[in-house]
Amino acid sequence: MNAELRDDPRDEQGLLEAFARYERALMGNDLAALDDLFATGEATLRADGVAALVGSDHIAQFRAGRGGAPARWLRRVHVRWITDHDAYVVAETDRVGGQGLQTQWWRQADGAWRVHAAHVSGGPVSAPEPVQDRATWRVLGGPAVSGAAGPLTGVRVAVKDLIAVQGQRVGGGVPTWLEQAPVETANAPALQRLLDAGAEVAGIAHTDELAFSLMGVNEHHGTPVNVAAPGRVPGGSTSGPAAAVAMGAADVGLGTDTAGSLRVPGSYCGLYAWRPTHGVVPVDGVLPLAQHFDTVGLVARDAGVLRRAGLELLGAQPSGARPHAFLRSELLMSLATPETARAVDASLLALSVATGVPVRDVDIDLDPATWTAAFRTVQAAQAWANHGEFLTANPDAVSASVAARFRNGSELSPEEVATAREVIAVTRQRLEELLAQGWLCLPSTSTPAPPVDAGPDGFEAARTGTLQLTTLASQAGVPALGLPWGRVGPLPVGLCLLAPQGSDADLLDLLARIAPA
Amino acid sequence: MNAELRDDPRDEQGLLEAFARYERALMGNDLAALDDLFATGEATLRADGVAALVGSDHIAQFRAGRGGAPARWLRRVHVRWITDHDAYVVAETDRVGGQGLQTQWWRQADGAWRVHAAHVSGGPVSAPEPVQDRATWRVLGGPAVSGAAGPLTGVRVAVKDLIAVQGQRVGGGVPTWLEQAPVETANAPALQRLLDAGAEVAGIAHTDELAFSLMGVNEHHGTPVNVAAPGRVPGGSTSGPAAAVAMGAADVGLGTDTAGSLRVPGSYCGLYAWRPTHGVVPVDGVLPLAQHFDTVGLVARDAGVLRRAGLELLGAQPSGARPHAFLRSELLMSLATPETARAVDASLLALSVATGVPVRDVDIDLDPATWTAAFRTVQAAQAWANHGEFLTANPDAVSASVAARFRNGSELSPEEVATAREVIAVTRQRLEELLAQGWLCLPSTSTPAPPVDAGPDGFEAARTGTLQLTTLASQAGVPALGLPWGRVGPLPVGLCLLAPQGSDADLLDLLARIAPA
Repeated sequence: MNAELRDDPRDEQGLLEAFARYERALMGNDLAALDDLFATGEATLRADGVAALVGSDHIAQFRAGRGGAPARWLRRVHVRWITDHDAYVVAETDRVGGQGLQTQWWRQADGAWRVHAAHVSGGPVSAPEPVQDRATWRVLGGPAVSGAAGPLTGVRVAVKDLIAVQGQRVGGGVPTWLEQAPVETANAPALQRLLDAGAEVAGIAHTDELAFSLMGVNEHHGTPVNVAAPGRVPGGSTSGPAAAVAMGAADVGLGTDTAGSLRVPGSYCGLYAWRPTHGVVPVDGVLPLAQHFDTVGLVARDAGVLRRAGLELLGAQPSGARPHAFLRSELLMSLATPETARAVDASLLALSVATGVPVRDVDIDLDPATWTAAFRTVQAAQAWANHGEFLTANPDAVSASVAARFRNGSELSPEEVATAREVIAVTRQRLEELLAQGWLCLPSTSTPAPPVDAGPDGFEAARTGTLQLTTLASQAGVPALGLPWGRVGPLPVGLCLLAPQGSDADLLDLLARIAPA
Repeated sequence: MNAELRDDPRDEQGLLEAFARYERALMGNDLAALDDLFATGEATLRADGVAALVGSDHIAQFRAGRGGAPARWLRRVHVRWITDHDAYVVAETDRVGGQGLQTQWWRQADGAWRVHAAHVSGGPVSAPEPVQDRATWRVLGGPAVSGAAGPLTGVRVAVKDLIAVQGQRVGGGVPTWLEQAPVETANAPALQRLLDAGAEVAGIAHTDELAFSLMGVNEHHGTPVNVAAPGRVPGGSTSGPAAAVAMGAADVGLGTDTAGSLRVPGSYCGLYAWRPTHGVVPVDGVLPLAQHFDTVGLVARDAGVLRRAGLELLGAQPSGARPHAFLRSELLMSLATPETARAVDASLLALSVATGVPVRDVDIDLDPATWTAAFRTVQAAQAWANHGEFLTANPDAVSASVAARFRNGSELSPEEVATAREVIAVTRQRLEELLAQGWLCLPSTSTPAPPVDAGPDGFEAARTGTLQLTTLASQAGVPALGLPWGRVGPLPVGLCLLAPQGSDADLLDLLARIAPA
């Protein structure tokens, strides 16, 4: 993957090309190509979940008789070199209604890579039982606004409790705020777009206090259960919708993302997540945190649902444009823990193979501490401008850690904020230049979800590490798509793609090529 | 496996020892040993059916948390050398209620073999729907003789239509025979032993005509369906009981074996099969074919059922003795097709690993054509002595091919028969000497089941090839156990073990160590 590896005696590019050819041949049931990619002879092995076929003739006969393989989508690919001409390749896949796994021994001989042994397996994933817990939902089922028939008919939306639902108050994750809030007289336009396309409201789900956290822990309501990572936080601030979607109680979470509040719970809960280009989805009717960065977007379990709901929210159609490359920055990878970075690299390899778009290593000549500090300064200043009056009048309304974040905003001088805005402008310009070359790929979060008992220091470490990654999109105002493909042990962690401003529809449309429709 | 390989730079013995250690550690949930047998580091992979764990730490955590692996039994092991110090090892297993498969990449470093990547998968096997077809059963359910409560309670026996069932006639696979047969006034003693232990009769199932065939094709009743190898013959002459057991309509088939009539359908239908030492199970009440070789024994899907029913039929208990070695003869292997021999070798490797008993190559200084011809001479002479009168009186009662076999017996001179008996005595003595060194392992049949439309020439080729293998036990009067572990493509083929005369209980007891109880 690195330019320095060009002189490597290992032909990784050739291996991956052969691997990609195999995937295409498998999905197209191209028997001649499949047979050609397997070594000829009696030593070749092909095993499924329960039995092995020995010899390329038997394998060819099996293929000829089965009428095609079930559709599958690469999720993670791992390569282990046995020799310079032998590789062990693991592919983790999604299948309709479940997951799958394939391991292969590839050998290069006479210049050609062929499979000498393969093992493929899979199993259905049982649908999780919906759990209707108070830590997740503020209002469940009650305000089910019936939408029109359309492309989202049957899609159940968990609405973050920052977004106006007609006939309901906005709670903002803070009981004192809820008490004082007016009853909304109309749905927020973003929600209305989903309803107009046929979606229905499953309920109003909790947010971190005034959306000013990334962990999904709320002292007033409790911590929603993360079924994708039991014993771990769900991430926030779109905590309730993400938890509800992960457990199957809703299909889409409609939430906000200022500093990562959709991408972080998406990463922690194993969900697809989309933060739109700043300004393309209306934020009217949504309680603000920091307008310079606030966006309204989505999380979903299912890639096809995210794509359809996202295109409705945009009211736009894809152009068909594809990136020239997927850009990988060693600097950004190093901001995640090594095992998170490895999981994200395995996902990136799957993405590249599935799309045929190459991975290119790029340099980012900026300092993460600097860009993150600038973001936090501007965010805190705007947050205080929005909520300082309420917090001054209700000093005990929010927890100590959130109160401290707001208080930081109250102490900033106009000069500090102006300097930070200049730093953000530089970061934004550099990212725009970079994104002209391809889509930037980075970890959605610096770690998988921390344990629920990680404590203030554990949460702060996870938040600080992750903000270095998530605030890049926020500062540049560019769209971000989180793919829930990485695994650190059993814990999900996201691969995040950043694309040029306004390319949201093409970014969402990528899902049609890499995931079950 | 060969002595000539001792100088091989490949440490196959060390690999297999490590592999066996791993199996023991897995079944004993010996976490320290399991961790030690996996390579340490972040590159190590362990995948199950749907997802991969990356890094030895995660793998160790997973092991520590799962509370042991499900019990499994090795069925076939395949080794592919990648380098002199890297091997790809495939293990096909039985599990309770299903099958499983494991592939591993082992690497030898600093003298020690360790797993660098593993993939394990499995799935339940759905119970086949019982099919109650006329080609399999002559009498179904009707004569269900209720046995006493005992170790075989609930075990349903399909009785070969050569064996007396009280109140029923013996049909012998020939309608004219059935018409003339008397109603039996008692169960054959062998059947009575099973009933006394609690078994019940599921029905009377067809045999090849007068038991004088190995294919399971019967012109009068049709060919029973072989669910383990659709479109293939079930093998005979215990054809109906084997087909019934394979399809789940009975648990045990009680049949006879003169020249392979239990071992052949066992091999073709994927069943465990036991031919006892000549004389240890009474043949009273059983229509004879050739008394010098006739035995009454069993086939079963389940190893535990075969073991329990076999011990009841013997009325004996195991001594606990184990063989010093499993003896492998290249000559005997060469009597099967190459792919059958490879499948049997893979099974033998599994057996050796599972039991810890080594495999030793041995020479057999005898000519297969000679020993087979001698057997056929004596068999045909006795068969004619038994049934010549009936066939002379009813010349159209049996099909042309079976009639020809009997006719051969009518044309033999006493000198020819006496010479053949002398050859058999030599073969018997040589085998007795060999079996003092260990248990002899050979293919149960020379091929998997032939297609139902193979025609007379195809059937004769399969019969001739297989008789070279099966008649060894018949001539020596030694017990034989067929393990249905081989696969040629999807088709089952048996591994057959011959043990010294009278060691039946120990031979059956082997099943307790290598199969689900």
